[in-house]
Parts: sequence; structure tokens; C-alpha cells
Amino acid sequence: MKENKYDDARFFDKYSQMPRSLQGLAGAGEWRELQKLLPDFRGKSVLDLGCGYGWHCAYAAERGAAAVLGVDLSQRMLDVARAKTRSSVVRYQRAAMEDLDLPEESVDVALSSLAFHYVADFAPLVAKICRWLKPGGDFVFSVEHPVFTAYGSQDWFYDEDGRILHFPVDNYYYEGQREAVFLGEPVIKYHRTLTTYLSTLLACGLRIEHIVEPQPPEEMMDLPGMREEMRRPMMLLVAAQKP
Amino acid sequence: MKENKYDDARFFDKYSQMPRSLQGLAGAGEWRELQKLLPDFRGKSVLDLGCGYGWHCAYAAERGAAAVLGVDLSQRMLDVARAKTRSSVVRYQRAAMEDLDLPEESVDVALSSLAFHYVADFAPLVAKICRWLKPGGDFVFSVEHPVFTAYGSQDWFYDEDGRILHFPVDNYYYEGQREAVFLGEPVIKYHRTLTTYLSTLLACGLRIEHIVEPQPPEEMMDLPGMREEMRRPMMLLVAAQKP
Repeated sequence: MKENKYDDARFFDKYSQMPRSLQGLAGAGEWRELQKLLPDFRGKSVLDLGCGYGWHCAYAAERGAAAVLGVDLSQRMLDVARAKTRSSVVRYQRAAMEDLDLPEESVDVALSSLAFHYVADFAPLVAKICRWLKPGGDFVFSVEHPVFTAYGSQDWFYDEDGRILHFPVDNYYYEGQREAVFLGEPVIKYHRTLTTYLSTLLACGLRIEHIVEPQPPEEMMDLPGMREEMRRPMMLLVAAQKP
Repeated sequence: MKENKYDDARFFDKYSQMPRSLQGLAGAGEWRELQKLLPDFRGKSVLDLGCGYGWHCAYAAERGAAAVLGVDLSQRMLDVARAKTRSSVVRYQRAAMEDLDLPEESVDVALSSLAFHYVADFAPLVAKICRWLKPGGDFVFSVEHPVFTAYGSQDWFYDEDGRILHFPVDNYYYEGQREAVFLGEPVIKYHRTLTTYLSTLLACGLRIEHIVEPQPPEEMMDLPGMREEMRRPMMLLVAAQKP
């Protein structure tokens, strides 16, 4: 059974209150960096794997994409996405991204924002994406950073008085399932090393164009907990191209 | 003043007792992975930045390199390297790698093993290496992993009974000088993020071919402390090519 935590009513309700849910892309700390990695969307066929509320689909459509397919396993997410998206070029499909089947060389731009760490098996998915991409096509994604996923709890290590001491890393080379706590709820995520993330792309013949560990943007620095985000890498952004 | 800890007699003496000093490449846990990233050396002009005992220079020469230049700041290291190396194609030069000056497009293969984390300023050095490389030339290096250098002490975090709890990460986005302890001696190293290591290469127009965080090899797993190396990434290996 593929992870579908976002159809859990309690979890979804909490997720709906996050800045990135209320404000969209502007509320996502990594957006400014991710945006820089995105290609020109004009006339392009765009695929968004784990599209959630559809913010990136809407963005691609606004920037002139010819066709956008947003895929997500969560019905609740897709309901919000459909309600929010007015563009006729955007289409949503309910599916686990691992089960998706698309024509070969039919996609100009494959996107995925913070969804691959819910996928148990990365290599077969990347192999599919490579097949779907047209030559010259772009693959841009964000994931939780291997430093952030290795230990499992995704929480800081505190002293007796509850002050942050540092961020713990452990079991780095033992890839696989982790029980993290996200928004106070248990969530299954999958840890993989940086080597696995990047070697899998390179092994498929993709060319790595950019690798960015986004820092918190200056204007968000006074939000609760944001200054601590200078102390650990939480996300990894990658842009690759099919030659 | 560039870091030259290896000319400190006490430190050098301890370094001389390490498996990698006594046994050469076979004693280095990462060698098996690094070796896979090395190109065919036959007829090539090879540069080794921070060559130490000259193991990689000797290796390149044995594999048919036409000319090998090993550069190191430490006189003690170079004395050992010269005593060990019998090949007439290997030449050693005492210099800080940042101060080196070579003709444009004169190098086929630039190597560096565990030396760049002693360099304060990475970008100007990479720019130079790019200029020195011939088109199609290879740049292969290992560094201490950003996870390993971020906190500073490079030590595990222990419980009250001295048992390892995890590896601490802190101040990840604050790049620069760290006072590490290596072989029981204080050593100045420089932390930089993965983003900085890889973006600097990409910004120079290099193509990233491989990124590997080497795991301890199975046959070394019973050496003291080696099993713990499955718990954190200690090194990062990168192979890039000048198009």
C-alpha cells in the first residue's frame, strides 16, 4: 500500500494550516530557490508528481505551459487542487506516481516537490521519468535532505532544559523506511543517501544541472524556528536534463 | 598562512602510523570507490593536489601516465613521497595548491585526495583547475563530507557511559573555519556545504559524472570503529569532466 497520509483527516487538517498550504508557493521557504531551477514553461508538456494542492501546476500553466498533468495519491489534495485551479490546460489524476504509465518521450518538464521521500523504490521511478522525458527535457525536484531523513525522528537533539543542542545523524547508510513525526503525526518516509539520489539520475543518463540545499530566505528569518534552519540542511533541490 | 599541519613533527608522526600511511591505497577505506572513478591514465598528464605520500601519483604512473605532478605544502610529506616513488615520470613540487600556476589546458587528469577541506577558498582554486584542464579532461577528488565537517569537532555524540548516540550536525550553512581534532591534535579545516562543492564545479562548466559517499568496505568492517562508519557519511567523492 503506498503512503497516503494526506487522506487522513486529522493529518490533512493540520497540513491545511501550514504556511505553504495557506499562502501557496510564497509560503514555502524553498520556493525562491526552486523557482530559479525551473525552465521556461511556454508551450511545454509538464508533469507534476505528487502535486498536492497543485501550486506548481498552476504556476506552470500561468507561465504558458501547453498541458499540465498533476498526479497525486490523495483525494483530499486533488479536491483542493481542482478547486483552486482555473486553467483549462491543467489536468489532475489520482494515482501513486510509481504506478503511472505515460507515453515515451511525451514530457518536456517533470517536476516533483517534496514527494519522493514517500516513495520506497526510487530507481524504477526515475527510469520511468527518463523514458517519459523528451530529449532535452528537464527534471526538477525537491526532497527532504538525506541529513534530515537519516535519523528518523526529524527532530533536533535537545538538552535537559529543552534547548536545541544540534541535529542528530545516524544510520546514514541504512536506507529505507523511517517513522518520522510531521505535524505531530506519525508518518512513514524513506531515507536514501545523497549518493543514491544523484547516482540514480546519472545512471539513467541524466545530466545534473543544479544541486541546491536551500537556506531559509532572509525575509522569513523571523518566523518561528526559521533561524534554526541555518543549522541543518532540510531539503535538497536537483535540476537535471535528459541529453 | 596556508595550513601545514603535516610539517608538525608530532602530528606527522601520528599520521605516519595510520593504515593509509603504512599500507598505502589498500589501507584507505575509500580507495576501492575512488579507484572506480579514475580514468584511464595511459599517456596522460596528471596533477595531484595535496599529494601527501604520493600514493596516487605512483598509481597513475604505474597505470601508464606520461607525466605526473604531485603538489603538497608539507616538506615531510614530499620527503616520503620522493623516497617511495621510483618512477621517472613523477615530479613533486612543494607549494600551496592555491598558489600553483600551470599552463592553460595542460592537464588531462586533476586529482585531489582529502585535501580541499584544508583550503579556505574553494571557488578560485576550482576556476584554476578548470583552466588547467584540457577539454575532455577529468577532475576527480575526495573531501571530508559536509556532514562530517559541519559541527566542527568531527566526533560522535556520546551518552554518559561513553556510548555513541549519534553524529551531531550543526551550523551547516555557516561555512568556514572549524577546529577539528584529528589524531588527537587540533587541526584547522574548512566546512563548506554540498551545494558549494557541487555548484562551484557546475558554475565552471564542469559536468558531474559521479558523486559517491563511500561506505566502509566489507573486508574492513571488523577494524576498530569501522562498523560505526555506516552511521554517518564521512567522505564525498566527486568525478567531473570538462566538456
